Amino acid sequence: MNSMSDVAVQPGLLDRALRRVSSLWRDMGVSGGRAAASFTEPLRECLEGRGGEVSARTRTAKLAEVYLAADHAGRDAFLRALARLDSDSEAVAKAMAGVAAAGADDEARAAAKARLRRVLEPPRLKLLTQFTTIPDGMKFLVDLRAELLQRSAGDAMLTALDADLRGQLAAWFDVGFLELRRIDWTSPASLLEKLVGYEAVHRIRTWRDLKNRLDSDRRCYAFFHPRMPEEPLIFVEVALVRGMAGTVRELLDEKAPVLDPRGADTAIFYSINNCQRGLDGISFGNFLIKRVVSLLSDEFRNLKSFATLSPVPGFSRWLGERFAAGETGLLSEEEGRAISAALPLPTAIAAPGAPALPPDAEAKPETPEAVLRRVLAKRHWMRNEALSRAVEPVLMRLCARYLAIEEAPGRPGRARDPVAHFHLSNGARIERLNWRGDVSEKGLKESAGLMVNYLYDPAKIEDYHEGYAGEGKRPMAAAMRKLAKG
Amino acid sequence: MNSMSDVAVQPGLLDRALRRVSSLWRDMGVSGGRAAASFTEPLRECLEGRGGEVSARTRTAKLAEVYLAADHAGRDAFLRALARLDSDSEAVAKAMAGVAAAGADDEARAAAKARLRRVLEPPRLKLLTQFTTIPDGMKFLVDLRAELLQRSAGDAMLTALDADLRGQLAAWFDVGFLELRRIDWTSPASLLEKLVGYEAVHRIRTWRDLKNRLDSDRRCYAFFHPRMPEEPLIFVEVALVRGMAGTVRELLDEKAPVLDPRGADTAIFYSINNCQRGLDGISFGNFLIKRVVSLLSDEFRNLKSFATLSPVPGFSRWLGERFAAGETGLLSEEEGRAISAALPLPTAIAAPGAPALPPDAEAKPETPEAVLRRVLAKRHWMRNEALSRAVEPVLMRLCARYLAIEEAPGRPGRARDPVAHFHLSNGARIERLNWRGDVSEKGLKESAGLMVNYLYDPAKIEDYHEGYAGEGKRPMAAAMRKLAKG
Amino acid sequence: MNSMSDVAVQPGLLDRALRRVSSLWRDMGVSGGRAAASFTEPLRECLEGRGGEVSARTRTAKLAEVYLAADHAGRDAFLRALARLDSDSEAVAKAMAGVAAAGADDEARAAAKARLRRVLEPPRLKLLTQFTTIPDGMKFLVDLRAELLQRSAGDAMLTALDADLRGQLAAWFDVGFLELRRIDWTSPASLLEKLVGYEAVHRIRTWRDLKNRLDSDRRCYAFFHPRMPEEPLIFVEVALVRGMAGTVRELLDEKAPVLDPRGADTAIFYSINNCQRGLDGISFGNFLIKRVVSLLSDEFRNLKSFATLSPVPGFSRWLGERFAAGETGLLSEEEGRAISAALPLPTAIAAPGAPALPPDAEAKPETPEAVLRRVLAKRHWMRNEALSRAVEPVLMRLCARYLAIEEAPGRPGRARDPVAHFHLSNGARIERLNWRGDVSEKGLKESAGLMVNYLYDPAKIEDYHEGYAGEGKRPMAAAMRKLAKG
Amino acid sequence: MNSMSDVAVQPGLLDRALRRVSSLWRDMGVSGGRAAASFTEPLRECLEGRGGEVSARTRTAKLAEVYLAADHAGRDAFLRALARLDSDSEAVAKAMAGVAAAGADDEARAAAKARLRRVLEPPRLKLLTQFTTIPDGMKFLVDLRAELLQRSAGDAMLTALDADLRGQLAAWFDVGFLELRRIDWTSPASLLEKLVGYEAVHRIRTWRDLKNRLDSDRRCYAFFHPRMPEEPLIFVEVALVRGMAGTVRELLDEKAPVLDPRGADTAIFYSINNCQRGLDGISFGNFLIKRVVSLLSDEFRNLKSFATLSPVPGFSRWLGERFAAGETGLLSEEEGRAISAALPLPTAIAAPGAPALPPDAEAKPETPEAVLRRVLAKRHWMRNEALSRAVEPVLMRLCARYLAIEEAPGRPGRARDPVAHFHLSNGARIERLNWRGDVSEKGLKESAGLMVNYLYDPAKIEDYHEGYAGEGKRPMAAAMRKLAKG
Repeated sequence: MNSMSDVAVQPGLLDRALRRVSSLWRDMGVSGGRAAASFTEPLRECLEGRGGEVSARTRTAKLAEVYLAADHAGRDAFLRALARLDSDSEAVAKAMAGVAAAGADDEARAAAKARLRRVLEPPRLKLLTQFTTIPDGMKFLVDLRAELLQRSAGDAMLTALDADLRGQLAAWFDVGFLELRRIDWTSPASLLEKLVGYEAVHRIRTWRDLKNRLDSDRRCYAFFHPRMPEEPLIFVEVALVRGMAGTVRELLDEKAPVLDPRGADTAIFYSINNCQRGLDGISFGNFLIKRVVSLLSDEFRNLKSFATLSPVPGFSRWLGERFAAGETGLLSEEEGRAISAALPLPTAIAAPGAPALPPDAEAKPETPEAVLRRVLAKRHWMRNEALSRAVEPVLMRLCARYLAIEEAPGRPGRARDPVAHFHLSNGARIERLNWRGDVSEKGLKESAGLMVNYLYDPAKIEDYHEGYAGEGKRPMAAAMRKLAKG
Repeated sequence: MNSMSDVAVQPGLLDRALRRVSSLWRDMGVSGGRAAASFTEPLRECLEGRGGEVSARTRTAKLAEVYLAADHAGRDAFLRALARLDSDSEAVAKAMAGVAAAGADDEARAAAKARLRRVLEPPRLKLLTQFTTIPDGMKFLVDLRAELLQRSAGDAMLTALDADLRGQLAAWFDVGFLELRRIDWTSPASLLEKLVGYEAVHRIRTWRDLKNRLDSDRRCYAFFHPRMPEEPLIFVEVALVRGMAGTVRELLDEKAPVLDPRGADTAIFYSINNCQRGLDGISFGNFLIKRVVSLLSDEFRNLKSFATLSPVPGFSRWLGERFAAGETGLLSEEEGRAISAALPLPTAIAAPGAPALPPDAEAKPETPEAVLRRVLAKRHWMRNEALSRAVEPVLMRLCARYLAIEEAPGRPGRARDPVAHFHLSNGARIERLNWRGDVSEKGLKESAGLMVNYLYDPAKIEDYHEGYAGEGKRPMAAAMRKLAKG
Repeated sequence: MNSMSDVAVQPGLLDRALRRVSSLWRDMGVSGGRAAASFTEPLRECLEGRGGEVSARTRTAKLAEVYLAADHAGRDAFLRALARLDSDSEAVAKAMAGVAAAGADDEARAAAKARLRRVLEPPRLKLLTQFTTIPDGMKFLVDLRAELLQRSAGDAMLTALDADLRGQLAAWFDVGFLELRRIDWTSPASLLEKLVGYEAVHRIRTWRDLKNRLDSDRRCYAFFHPRMPEEPLIFVEVALVRGMAGTVRELLDEKAPVLDPRGADTAIFYSINNCQRGLDGISFGNFLIKRVVSLLSDEFRNLKSFATLSPVPGFSRWLGERFAAGETGLLSEEEGRAISAALPLPTAIAAPGAPALPPDAEAKPETPEAVLRRVLAKRHWMRNEALSRAVEPVLMRLCARYLAIEEAPGRPGRARDPVAHFHLSNGARIERLNWRGDVSEKGLKESAGLMVNYLYDPAKIEDYHEGYAGEGKRPMAAAMRKLAKG
Repeated sequence: MNSMSDVAVQPGLLDRALRRVSSLWRDMGVSGGRAAASFTEPLRECLEGRGGEVSARTRTAKLAEVYLAADHAGRDAFLRALARLDSDSEAVAKAMAGVAAAGADDEARAAAKARLRRVLEPPRLKLLTQFTTIPDGMKFLVDLRAELLQRSAGDAMLTALDADLRGQLAAWFDVGFLELRRIDWTSPASLLEKLVGYEAVHRIRTWRDLKNRLDSDRRCYAFFHPRMPEEPLIFVEVALVRGMAGTVRELLDEKAPVLDPRGADTAIFYSINNCQRGLDGISFGNFLIKRVVSLLSDEFRNLKSFATLSPVPGFSRWLGERFAAGETGLLSEEEGRAISAALPLPTAIAAPGAPALPPDAEAKPETPEAVLRRVLAKRHWMRNEALSRAVEPVLMRLCARYLAIEEAPGRPGRARDPVAHFHLSNGARIERLNWRGDVSEKGLKESAGLMVNYLYDPAKIEDYHEGYAGEGKRPMAAAMRKLAKG
């Protein structure tokens, strides 16, 4: 039985209210993009609860329909009108005075602050809550926030509205309310179809590809909310393998033999995807990984390692910035020469410290960085075996350094790479860097074809988390550390 | 699969953190009722999220166990320590200054108020949310609030904590998230056992009585929350009958023949019970009645009337107050005489306006009110047929007046009787007063044996609600109005 | 969705056929107990399939209603008419000739026998199958067989009908189709109510008693059929305890503390009940016990023993028969004297071999058997401590002998006690005899208060079964064997 | 909880028995195709029930594994060994004598026949039943019969085995036990994948095509057995449309707009597929159609007609046989001329009765039949507009005649076309013939591109069935009848 839907469609009971409100909106020509002002009245009417709370909910349902039917401008007007339903400034001023007057007295201050919190609660929040009673109300609100996020940047009113909505969604989507469900080939086709749509890390190309990812030596888990039972919030794809997988290719190969999962010693988390843009900033990934680790440990006693196979999505950009800044010393002269030698038209390599010359300056020597930059700009550089071999040690070292040392601008202690930051925050360790880990177009472009394994060692997760969160320590396997130091 | 329980019991992962915290508490001798101060540290530790968010949740689970194992004093200390985790007063002061500085500029004001709301959010709120991840977290919080409500009256700190918890519960228990489920004889015995415990209007005496209330011509519906799936929040018992039932007796008679419900023309809502004290102030009753009306309308096309059979729980008390205040004119002299005549030892009736004399003043005349008071004080007055007949018109008239006119002290426009106020607020009409409606001890004591039918007429609910909420109009059947006027 | 019910009630489609058939039956005055002959026509009509197979099923549904509405005589007529729908004797004779003619040729004989089987299949069987399509068709057939069993003894026609129905039910209720479900306090009240009705070994007195039997240290499992999902076929009650329980009292004590089942080392099967009289002769008990042993082993790793606590329902009768036959030597003279001495009015004990004298023969000596008989005939002999002590070794020894040696009349090798035979056939061992195991009136009357533990040792079940089934060997604990030998 | 699987895998309990049996089989080299004789012993051992019934079942499970692992020859040997487990011929002879001796005495005869039936029951039947306890036992037996059917033709032993298995499956798969389930886009992907595999009438080409067939204006229903819950037995695809659809093309067009199904007046059953070869001869189609009619009537009140869109799979073959037999008079001379005129190289048309000349006989006149034959032999004749127009009236008339009159060889009264026979038996009416109904390769080849609508009129189903079953009457729409008469 589904929430309030039957009240919403009950004939007779609330007809007049609906007619009143909806004809008003029809007259307004919502789709024409009227000024937000025209929405104010209907919104207030929903809030006032004329005809009782049940009627108010019904009117809100009608409002949702109007919003859904509106075009971009109409939705804009709606959101702005909603944002205006802020707390009463006079009441706020009065309550602030109360807090000030309470002084240092604990009791008085507690009471005054509670009062202030109450009057600060904006009416728009109550209205947002009323949307929950429509049949797909939760999805409605999540999608409404997705639209809001596209518009709120730099807009104080919409940002405030977003803060309210985000807070409310955070309460509703607390991990305590989520259900972890396994997704496999017996899941509804409609759900699998959504998975195909949401998978952004390694695109699912065909139903066959999908079926391969849900085979007996694979696992896929997702969080769901009881009020959005058909919409995954976040999902993770896991491969059960022997030894630590270093390339996506081997995992997605449809022709690879299926392993008896009871024989696997390693679980590779090779794709984690957030599905709902409207839940940005409300995080589940951390919980998802640890719960899946826990589930898999229970099911497969032979599993010894839990690791990801992850891209390094900020590596190419960071390297590009180094190039653009004319940074030198990234490569040794010798490395530059080795790369150059593997090129069809080798060039002289400039002595360290010498100014980088434009690549078209014929006989003039280039810096090693310029050579590398030139190589990476080529589309198919990796297919050239000799070139690839020459570039490999350089990129491996640079990427290890990038992961081990580089910090996010203005955020000391925080890893520059967003994926590294996510896993380090969760208590993982940088375990291994894999050459040719992902040679898809996207993999080459963003991560220079490299992939990392982050290891989740249940016994050390807490310490690692603590060290990274507190002091910015990045735990790494010895080989990685050595690699990073060159 | 159930929420976070598997993380909570995961071996190894969070052991140290747990040991650290729980040994601390063990040392404290929680059950001995230490000062709240000793709780501050562990609470803060939960908040700080040492070892990551997942670990924090695990520690919170441990905290819940400690609380549950504590005695009254220990829980007291816990709640007070929790209440102290208030927002940072300095940050609040600063943010208030920001609001003041923003002046009349809409954008600036919106941003400043959003900031103020954020800093006002007390840390205890975050901690409360963390309890959701324990297996029965939702029930834990509801029960925690029930305990809190027993202590918070007159205590500003606990009242502020209650306001936070109530707000959070209101978000989680919004009617949009509730599931309406039918309860019948095929429901789990464990649930039916709870029903027996929660039924407070007309006690369920035996399993046989219960089965009778769940028979084919009965319906029982309850709201449930997805995270408390075995705990009803509120439930309503309905009898499908022919004609408007006027007494509980006929509804609860186990030997009465079972009616084919498809032949029923009236649905009588004869018992509505809130089950969770910890959800006080978060109302579902209004929604429940209207959704059940809607469901029944769909299932039984012959149903024409939807009405309650309700007690008048404030009537006897109100009448007692009238007596105590020495109010006269409640009965006519003639009525007084009729009652007196039915008594074993009739007395003279005082002329109107004459001072009421003590009943033991032998030959002296009594006021009609004094006679009535004396009758009602007798335990079995209703069993005396003649007496009952003499009293009936008087009590019927007085009760109709009580329902139609009397206002709650200091709340103009609001019906004095709480049940009447509930149904009038929901848009119901006072339909009929029933003599000998409930002759149980409780019924006689509180309602002088009377019961009312409130009628829910879907076509008029909104107008009735509006009239009552706005102008205090109380819709009544013509016969009731006439009765009230005497 | 329930089988054919929607076709059965479809308006219009089959109206005429129904009217035709049912008016015919109405005219016949079914409830008046007409001769079976009057049923023949309608039964044939169902078989002929007039109007197609779907219509035939609908008519059969109508037939079921007529049967259900009929009184005892009506049902009798119905069953006899049904029994008459036998195979065609001429066709059978012809097919028998075919088998005879086929001689020793394998192929020819196979074909001839197949043909004979086909013509032997009685039309009533097809009709019985058609009842499956009515909403509770399976239950209908099971109940119909229960009625049949009450009438078939000594009636060749009804016995043949029963053989058909039994065969068909055996196919449908093959253990491969049954579902094993746990029953606990969260099971539907309607199911628990049935449990109360079906428990025949140790009566469930109250809902409180029932709840105690479903507590956390108890288990109850039942087999269900997918087409009778609300009807248990057989159920077993298990107590998880420490050490082998010897008395029902300790198991059913509502005030006994609840044991943490993970600490239990023994599972006691203390009540097994067949629920459907109509499935007599189709056995599930063997499977049920072994599946439950398997389930419990998986759930509770500490369980070491699986044993029953069973009555010895044939013991008192067997002893009575010994007495009646004047058998001597059951007790030694000394034992007889010990018992006699404990009596309020002791008597002389006759020398072995001396004729038993009537107990009223004053000074004359009685045989030891006569004394025992006299004691056991007293209602409360067990309450007399001294008497009880004197009788104990005698009854223990005699019962052990009864279990160890006595054979069912005319069935050499088969234990005389039906419960012993059941468990021995299943591969159990006679483990222990318990004095005062069941002192209820029934326990005293049938089993002289004794109870037995039969032990199921998974490692030996097969050998024990084999030994008992093949050579009539009864495996016993050493102490039991010793006891039996006296 | 799944049937007996946990007993089957229980460690220890039955180890020895398993080792004994399976090593025997291993030695035999089952996959090498040993003589059936080598299977006899293990089969008998399963039957004898050594170690008890539970052990016997476990051995049978092992037997199933051996069978599944065997190659074609191994399975052959297995089936033949199984077939040999026939009833005891001596016992049969004795029981037959008993029947003969019973003579005309009803009671004696009934008893004797029951005895004969019992001894005739072959042991192989008991063994077949034991397979039900393995986890997918039902599917195992259905597939076993599918293999058997490939081998049994002309083999009396295997045919007898098949008769037993068929009888048992018929009891288990009685329509009363089947569940009707709707299949839609939220069904498990694994089930939809099977649908794709089983659809044989109009091949499903892509997941997109499949999704289109499960859209909101489509319905798909299947029968399932509770013990084969993931295997459809038969399914039907229905399109909800306005007016009677005449071509598959319009139904399968993925780009066609989706109709609001509540506006549909006609339900077109355009594909019915049996899924399990092993259930041949056990029919559900009749019940499926009528139950779906009933369900759709309830859901969509606007539906007025229920009809199929069916191929005429025997039409081309029948016509070819007419041609091959040199039958004349199928076409008029005029029709022949019209067709010839539309050909690129027209030929003279022979006078009626004149001998048909070979088509290569240049100037010589052809019979109209020869011309038509020549046209139909061309691959793309229908793409030629003029030719198609000339052929249309002829084929429409001939096909109408084929449906209306032609009888199956040797089965008077039975429609020659198998699909026509199926629907006429079910009580449908031949409603409309559709030119270019299915222009797929298969449609052209078998049905000359024609499709028929069979109409199911609930009010007439019975009479139509009766007329056809009894007297071979074929109900037709007036236009069809006219068309058939030419």
